[in-house]
Amino acid sequence: MKEIKIGLIGFGTIGCGVVKVLKKRTASLEKKLGIKLSLKVICDQDITRKRDVVIGKSILTTDIKKVINDKEIQIVIELVGGIHPAKEYIIAALRNKKYVVTANKALLATAGEEIFDVAAKNGVDVYFEASVGSGIPIIRALREGLVSNQVESIYGIVNGTSNYILSEMSQRGCNFKTALAQARKKGYAETDYSLDINGQDSAHKIVILARMCFGQKINFSEVYVEGINNISLSDIEYAAELGFCIKLLAITKVTGDNLQIRVHPTFLPKRHLLSNVDGVFNAIFVNADLVGEMLLYGQGAGQMPTASAVISDVVTIAQKITQAPLCSKQRLYVKGSSGPKKIQPIDEIKTRYYIRFSAVDKPAVLSQISAILGKEKISIHSVIQKGRQQNQAVPIVMMTHEARGKNLRKALAKIDKLPAVKRKTVAIRVERL
Amino acid sequence: MKEIKIGLIGFGTIGCGVVKVLKKRTASLEKKLGIKLSLKVICDQDITRKRDVVIGKSILTTDIKKVINDKEIQIVIELVGGIHPAKEYIIAALRNKKYVVTANKALLATAGEEIFDVAAKNGVDVYFEASVGSGIPIIRALREGLVSNQVESIYGIVNGTSNYILSEMSQRGCNFKTALAQARKKGYAETDYSLDINGQDSAHKIVILARMCFGQKINFSEVYVEGINNISLSDIEYAAELGFCIKLLAITKVTGDNLQIRVHPTFLPKRHLLSNVDGVFNAIFVNADLVGEMLLYGQGAGQMPTASAVISDVVTIAQKITQAPLCSKQRLYVKGSSGPKKIQPIDEIKTRYYIRFSAVDKPAVLSQISAILGKEKISIHSVIQKGRQQNQAVPIVMMTHEARGKNLRKALAKIDKLPAVKRKTVAIRVERL
Repeated sequence: MKEIKIGLIGFGTIGCGVVKVLKKRTASLEKKLGIKLSLKVICDQDITRKRDVVIGKSILTTDIKKVINDKEIQIVIELVGGIHPAKEYIIAALRNKKYVVTANKALLATAGEEIFDVAAKNGVDVYFEASVGSGIPIIRALREGLVSNQVESIYGIVNGTSNYILSEMSQRGCNFKTALAQARKKGYAETDYSLDINGQDSAHKIVILARMCFGQKINFSEVYVEGINNISLSDIEYAAELGFCIKLLAITKVTGDNLQIRVHPTFLPKRHLLSNVDGVFNAIFVNADLVGEMLLYGQGAGQMPTASAVISDVVTIAQKITQAPLCSKQRLYVKGSSGPKKIQPIDEIKTRYYIRFSAVDKPAVLSQISAILGKEKISIHSVIQKGRQQNQAVPIVMMTHEARGKNLRKALAKIDKLPAVKRKTVAIRVERL
Repeated sequence: MKEIKIGLIGFGTIGCGVVKVLKKRTASLEKKLGIKLSLKVICDQDITRKRDVVIGKSILTTDIKKVINDKEIQIVIELVGGIHPAKEYIIAALRNKKYVVTANKALLATAGEEIFDVAAKNGVDVYFEASVGSGIPIIRALREGLVSNQVESIYGIVNGTSNYILSEMSQRGCNFKTALAQARKKGYAETDYSLDINGQDSAHKIVILARMCFGQKINFSEVYVEGINNISLSDIEYAAELGFCIKLLAITKVTGDNLQIRVHPTFLPKRHLLSNVDGVFNAIFVNADLVGEMLLYGQGAGQMPTASAVISDVVTIAQKITQAPLCSKQRLYVKGSSGPKKIQPIDEIKTRYYIRFSAVDKPAVLSQISAILGKEKISIHSVIQKGRQQNQAVPIVMMTHEARGKNLRKALAKIDKLPAVKRKTVAIRVERL
């Protein structure tokens, strides 16, 4: 089996996540790809601190050269963050013909052109799925899925901290300060949360997306950036009254010969999908000429979603480097990681049910129905009975607790035979998600 | 420049869309990929009918062998639909070592394993992004973006016709028959709409997704399928009353050693994102162990979205066949198709605004403010003024029509100097999307 050696720079939260995924999914990735992904070196300033993943000490180093100058390492994952020394590390790795995977949005937004130029000159690539929207595969979607489209606009909720604060203010009616304190308590705001709430983080991300979609250099200083610092509860309340909600949006769109790039709190119609993106979730709404409207939604931060994105890039590079037989990738679905499971017959599946009976409104009917349901172990959550009209069929509506398909089927067969039941009973499954 | 020759089987609506995209985007795709995509042959039973795209007659044929046996053709696009003869065409193409791109969900759902086996034996691949969710890149997202994840469940609204009918019933309070008639009138339901509303089309799609995610053979006959034929308006109304909405969901999920695959009308909590997917739109909600919740939303049918998905697969295959320099793909963002555009300064950008003034409640104040706004060409859409308290600052809330950033900035600077205005005015941009 072909083997690809990987070097990791930065052994913080995301770095640990990457190590966890590589350990946990070694076997299934090998099976899927026919490639062995081996983590050879991890470099961090602090290699003594206890991490939440167990790793052999021999692969830890504080010496960056052990990653950058190791001839065996073909892929370097940079998770240091910030501009320096991350930039120098990445450029050195690229000059040594190593592929780079990074989650570093600040660096890509401000020095992306330089970095991509170095990559191109050295015949290698920089992958950055984790830099925007974490585990949401927005970079792939734009680069591959929409390859023949012209993107017209992007509206993104790309900062979870800001979105959490605005959601809290809106849902709990609290002020900015209280919501921020809550975000910090929940671990959704880092110690230095200024880049999140002042809009800079969102601006980094929209620059990365705009550069990809519109294929041009974008000076970060040309982006208009306004954060949520000054949003007051009263504005959120007025917005609601007017049928809007307030979201921090990162926007880029083409208008004639101009390109707009801006980040600011925005009034959005309540009925729009973006208005329903709550808490720390991110969503990117794209308009493109062929596919029309598209939205991708998911967790925009966190150890495992971000690690998932990093590994997806590592896999893409590994498949390219090894020129793996093309069908192996395509055949992912044939050789899965989990063994074959039994397809559960619908009779065995448990769900809640909505049930509507059409029954003559006599005192005994409800008790007859309930008795049959009870015998089949179907317990009733709530009942609505309306429009009482003696001796005429009226609807009786029930929501049940979880019940097996078979039990429901048997119960309804009996109920539909009751003289008081005038029409076939309607049952619809309920999913709470 | 490397050239890849393509054969197209099926010159209907989607086929015409593919031809349109290939013509329209030849130059930009060549620039992006460094590969020339040439459509060599189009095969259809009827090559005389007028199409909505102009194409040289010399490339049209009714003879399938001109595609399947042409040694130059490396990629075959199958857009015939249905099981026969599409299956025979695809298998013949694969045996001749041609890559296949298809949108044929019925075929993949019922004979997928056989087809993928033939592909693997011949060292080629079948790509099928267009088979589920049309232009929504869900196949790529699952295969590449989530490559290291274990998918736990998928809930999909994957049939636009059914979703349109349910949305109409819910929003207009009409019955099933009226909504169906409306769908047909709008062209959202084909002449034979039975596969759409009886759930079979959704079942085809969920089988394709489940096979990919869980890596096992799935017999189509084991899928429980129930359509929307029997949904009555009263059930939709009861659902709303109970805080739910009814959607036709295609569901697959792992529960212990079992796998559930089912399609049926489902009660969903109104606040869930899937409940807000209206009209002909599709959405796929995925739960996976690393990324958590994810949703992809977009047009699930239509000529251009589907053509976009087909071309995305053609591009992926072309890049693999040619082993194009890796950086060219990655550098999409550097060499865009459209020329560089001017970044529009925020002062020049026009949006609507929400404005909140804090002004002493005197009769003249509103007219002073309006006069300044008028001078800067900012016209007022609506005003809310509440809680009148003489000689105290009260909020005056306005929604404006579109105004230039610069005009608003200048107007507010003047307004904030009025003696009656007691605090800095708040202005938030409005996007109607």
